[in-house]
Amino acid sequence: MNITVQKFGGTSVADTERIRNVARRVCESRSRGENVVVVISALGDTTDRLVKLAYEITPSPREREMDMLLATGEQVSVALLSMAIHELGYEAISFTGAQVGIVTDGAHTKAKILDVKVGRILDELEKGNIVIVAGFQGVTLDDQITTLGRGGSDTTAVALAAALGAEVCEIYTDVDGVYTADPRLVPEARKLSHLSYEEMLEMAATGAKVLQLRSVEFARNYGVVIHVRSSFSREEGTWISEGDERMEKAIISGVTHETEEAKVTVFNVPDRPGVAARLFQALAAENINVDMIIQNVSADQRTDISFTVGLQDLSKAAEISERVAEELGAAGTVVDEGIAKVSLVGAGMRTHPGVAADMFSALAESGINIEMISTSTIKISCVIRAEDALKAVRAIHAKFGLDKGVVMRA
Amino acid sequence: MNITVQKFGGTSVADTERIRNVARRVCESRSRGENVVVVISALGDTTDRLVKLAYEITPSPREREMDMLLATGEQVSVALLSMAIHELGYEAISFTGAQVGIVTDGAHTKAKILDVKVGRILDELEKGNIVIVAGFQGVTLDDQITTLGRGGSDTTAVALAAALGAEVCEIYTDVDGVYTADPRLVPEARKLSHLSYEEMLEMAATGAKVLQLRSVEFARNYGVVIHVRSSFSREEGTWISEGDERMEKAIISGVTHETEEAKVTVFNVPDRPGVAARLFQALAAENINVDMIIQNVSADQRTDISFTVGLQDLSKAAEISERVAEELGAAGTVVDEGIAKVSLVGAGMRTHPGVAADMFSALAESGINIEMISTSTIKISCVIRAEDALKAVRAIHAKFGLDKGVVMRA
Repeated sequence: MNITVQKFGGTSVADTERIRNVARRVCESRSRGENVVVVISALGDTTDRLVKLAYEITPSPREREMDMLLATGEQVSVALLSMAIHELGYEAISFTGAQVGIVTDGAHTKAKILDVKVGRILDELEKGNIVIVAGFQGVTLDDQITTLGRGGSDTTAVALAAALGAEVCEIYTDVDGVYTADPRLVPEARKLSHLSYEEMLEMAATGAKVLQLRSVEFARNYGVVIHVRSSFSREEGTWISEGDERMEKAIISGVTHETEEAKVTVFNVPDRPGVAARLFQALAAENINVDMIIQNVSADQRTDISFTVGLQDLSKAAEISERVAEELGAAGTVVDEGIAKVSLVGAGMRTHPGVAADMFSALAESGINIEMISTSTIKISCVIRAEDALKAVRAIHAKFGLDKGVVMRA
Repeated sequence: MNITVQKFGGTSVADTERIRNVARRVCESRSRGENVVVVISALGDTTDRLVKLAYEITPSPREREMDMLLATGEQVSVALLSMAIHELGYEAISFTGAQVGIVTDGAHTKAKILDVKVGRILDELEKGNIVIVAGFQGVTLDDQITTLGRGGSDTTAVALAAALGAEVCEIYTDVDGVYTADPRLVPEARKLSHLSYEEMLEMAATGAKVLQLRSVEFARNYGVVIHVRSSFSREEGTWISEGDERMEKAIISGVTHETEEAKVTVFNVPDRPGVAARLFQALAAENINVDMIIQNVSADQRTDISFTVGLQDLSKAAEISERVAEELGAAGTVVDEGIAKVSLVGAGMRTHPGVAADMFSALAESGINIEMISTSTIKISCVIRAEDALKAVRAIHAKFGLDKGVVMRA
């Protein structure tokens, strides 16, 4: 059975008029003979509205109850989209995550998908139905409703595509693909026609908002071909797949930036084995994702340890760091929210020495100071002052000729 | 285990401030050592808002998808109430109808409860939790989400009370009990301290809005003691139970009225066997609840058949009646929306002749014409002009001395 999974985000279903637009897109695919499974998010600002209600009740809602609350958002969307498709004369049926069997672990508000049961979906596709599944949500084996966290609908779509053996997982969004940089910051940014999973992973991990990191990991692990495209145009977007020899190989895919992180530094820590482990185990125990970690060269048996975390985890991370700093006999902890991270991503980087040096000199030429550096085989990230982010992204984008799309190809 | 089921309606949870009020009521009961199961409706106008969204999409939403949509309303309420209870320092856990196992048939938008599984609720009560269940909704054996129709939360509460063997099912509402007449129409109306199931059934069936008819039937069938009371005061309300010798026996319980019905008359129908059956089978096939049925004495082998239906079913009922009238060779069909029904209910009626005559004379003395009459052993209903309803209720209430509460007791 040729199956297409289509995912539409919150802005694509912001109101009933846009829901009708999504219904038309879905029915076009159906009329071409595709068996369509649609994953959608909550309508526009629904999730924010529900979160606000919860905080009117209590400053610290329990996560299980937040999941009960937030899961309603997508349930509203799937019912309305199903109605809109019926109105166009096509057959459709809507399901919650629990109903189709998106089985997750019990980590409420950021659950991980453990299993996807496809029997019910396949039955409905065989009856000729377009199947609409609520994104962002699942159910534990003991029947607790869970949500997958920010961007979770992408993960739902990719997981369904993997389990169903879909030919493609189309991610419809309000931009028409993945760009060499955020086009709102860099008007010369170009749309990328293809990216490997690895490149997309680094782009997503370093600030490209178009796809959620976990969904790309899922796609890579199960070989799901993703097509990121606009819900408002018919143009091809960006394809993400394993990549093969025929694919044009760019050394550099793009420049990304992230401003939603902060830096925590623990000063003057005794430099002995196990110190870093103690700190980062304590953070991990609270489920805090640490991004970059830097430990300075030791002087006088003392050292400074810095790390970056997402702003949403900052207060918890700072609290834990202070506690651990005290236990370790460190001088203290300083939090810096005024940072940005700019990154350069490209699979060709690993065979082209000098890319890092070029990036650093682009920053230097713009008078931008680098505070932290972190590299992988296909990515270089620099932490700089937040106010320098725009200038930095533009400088690096220009330095590598990404607007021209012709230089530095392998 | 001593269990109390408490049900709070939409006006009791209209906003977050009222949800906090409900939480306080619930926690008071818990602090007295009661094991509390709470059933709540959707917040205030949520259901209306969701219905409006659906009709923005399509003039004829399918009932299955309406159920998917509307079931979200109660899910929001239970999550928020659970948070509000946590905020007061008590333990609580929320569930959808599907999660606790409110099993229904597949009649979407008006499903009937077939079974209630109590294992999960009992487990949570034993852990010390207040258990909060979404009213109005259930799930079919093949895992489709259903809703129970208007007033369905009352039915959820009574069904849970029955299945759990609860000592009492408290129905909290915006009035403080069941009255001898609608106090907004008759300021002298008195609150009734006790009613038998039979009396409450007739009161609900003839227009008393305080309890949904089906929930009272359920309570009678399973012997569930209901206590109707105000969510805004601590006063005792009205108890509804089987009734015993110790209970004060009033001949008359109260006067009710219903203005949400219309009369359909099929004129000049050939008077032969099977004619009425043909008409009412056709209506039943479309799931239309017919209330009163009157067939006039035959003249010239022709007769007129009149019946009343709820306004929500009127257009369908009229359409079917016209079709059947044509098939039967009747003269035609007339619809009359300008009617009201006033009823007198009382268990003592059956042993006290003359009650009907007194009621008719009360109407006559007020110059009100009676268009249809229907009686049961404990109820007399008259259809009159809608504009006479208020006058009629007051006249009958006064005639039977219901404001005094002393006359006509057995």
